Amino acid sequence: MKKAVVLLSGGLDSTTCLAIARDQGFSCYGISFDYGQRHRSELRAAQKIGEELGLVEHKTIPIDLRAFGGSALTDMSIDVPVDTDEINAGTSRVASGKVSENDQETLIPVTYVPARNTIFLSLSLGYAEVLKAQDIFIGVNAVDYSGYPDCRPEFIQAFEKMANLAIKTAVEGQEICIHTPLISLSKADIIKQGIALGVDYSLTVSCYKADSLGHACGHCESCLLRQQGFKQAGIEDLTHYQ
Amino acid sequence: MKKAVVLLSGGLDSTTCLAIARDQGFSCYGISFDYGQRHRSELRAAQKIGEELGLVEHKTIPIDLRAFGGSALTDMSIDVPVDTDEINAGTSRVASGKVSENDQETLIPVTYVPARNTIFLSLSLGYAEVLKAQDIFIGVNAVDYSGYPDCRPEFIQAFEKMANLAIKTAVEGQEICIHTPLISLSKADIIKQGIALGVDYSLTVSCYKADSLGHACGHCESCLLRQQGFKQAGIEDLTHYQ
Repeated sequence: MKKAVVLLSGGLDSTTCLAIARDQGFSCYGISFDYGQRHRSELRAAQKIGEELGLVEHKTIPIDLRAFGGSALTDMSIDVPVDTDEINAGTSRVASGKVSENDQETLIPVTYVPARNTIFLSLSLGYAEVLKAQDIFIGVNAVDYSGYPDCRPEFIQAFEKMANLAIKTAVEGQEICIHTPLISLSKADIIKQGIALGVDYSLTVSCYKADSLGHACGHCESCLLRQQGFKQAGIEDLTHYQ
Repeated sequence: MKKAVVLLSGGLDSTTCLAIARDQGFSCYGISFDYGQRHRSELRAAQKIGEELGLVEHKTIPIDLRAFGGSALTDMSIDVPVDTDEINAGTSRVASGKVSENDQETLIPVTYVPARNTIFLSLSLGYAEVLKAQDIFIGVNAVDYSGYPDCRPEFIQAFEKMANLAIKTAVEGQEICIHTPLISLSKADIIKQGIALGVDYSLTVSCYKADSLGHACGHCESCLLRQQGFKQAGIEDLTHYQ
C-alpha cells in the first residue's frame, strides 16, 4: 500500500478527505497542528477521528502561531464574527456561486490565519519526505469556502511545484503530489460523499468558537456554512450544539 | 523605512545577509528557529547578533523537527560526518566549481533536514504578512553550499511565486519579494562583503557540532567550508574552536 500524509484538523472537510484517501487505497498518516487556535477541541476530535478511520500514525505538531497573531483564530483580542451582515452576505454570495475576483479580495474574513496552509503543507512535506510518501491529501475547498487565498487551486499547484524543487527525495525522482479531492465540491457534495463512505460527522468539529466539549456555537461563519451544507444535501445535521 | 523579515540562524551566511539588508536601508525584523537542532548554541549567537545589528524585533519560533527526524541535525542517532572522504570530495568539488547536476543529487549529505527552508520561509511569510512587510531576506547560497536542494535559485523563485498566491496581503497587491543576496557568491566573497559591512564573525556559529559555548569542532562539513572561505578570502579566521 502506498503511504499518504493527510492533514487532519478534526473538521468536516479534512475528515472527508481522509475517508477519500483511505477509500483510494492509501495507507494514511495523519498530521494535525496545535497552533494556538481558539477552538482547540478540534484537536481532540482529530484524535478520535484518526483512531476511527485507522490512521497508521498520527502526529500533532505544536506550532504556536500566536507568536505572530493577526487572526481572530489566534489572537483573542480579535472577535470571531457571528451572525453579522457581512457573514450573511459572504455565505449567500458563496452559495449563489456569485463570487467575483474582486469580491473574493474584499471577502477575506478576520478568521484568515496568515500563511496557515503554507505552513501546514510545509510541515506535511517534511513528514512525507521522512516517510518516503509521495502523496499528501488536504481538504481545501474553493467553492463553499471563506475566501481564504490558500484554498485556491492556483495556490495548491504553485505549492506542489515548489515542493518538487525543495526536497531531496523529489530531486531524486520521487515527486510529490498534493491531492485536493474536495477542491471543486460544494459543502453539500462533500457531505454526501462522506456519508457514502461512512463518515460519522457528529465526531467532527467545524465551529470557530467550539467549547471544550467540541460543541458548536451555531452562529459563526464556519457553523453557517456547515448548516447550509447539511440542509442543501438533505441530510440530518447531527452536530452537537451548545 | 521599509520593513524586512530576515532569517537569522546565527551562522556566517545569515549574519552577512542581515548586514546587507540593514545596509540597503531596511528596518529589520529577525526570525530564528528552535527546531531541535543539535547545535543549539547557534540560537544564543543569533540573539547576540540581533542585538549588535539593531533588529527592531527578534522572534525565536519553537518548531520541533525532531518530531519527524530524518537528519543528522535533528536525530541524535545519526552522526554528523567529520573529516570523511565524502566530505572532502564534496567540499573540494564545490570549491573547484565542478558540481554537476548528477553530483548534486548524490552529494546531498545526512545533515540535510527535510523541507527545512520551506518550513522556515513559510513561517517567515506569516510573520511578514502580520508586519505588512513585503521583503524577506534569506542567506541561502548555491555555490559554496552543501548540496541542499532548498538553497537553489529555482527553489526560491518557486517559493516566491507560491507565496504571492498564498497570502491575503499579496492577493490584495502587496507582493512579497524573497531576497537572496548571497545566492551566487562564494564563501570567500560572502566573508569579504561582511567584513566590509563591519560584521564580527567571531560572534557567529556555523559548526554542526558546536558545544554549549558555541565553540566549533573544526572538522564537520560546515566548519571545513567556513575555514576554506576565510583562507580563500585571505582574512584571519577568529572562530572559537573547541
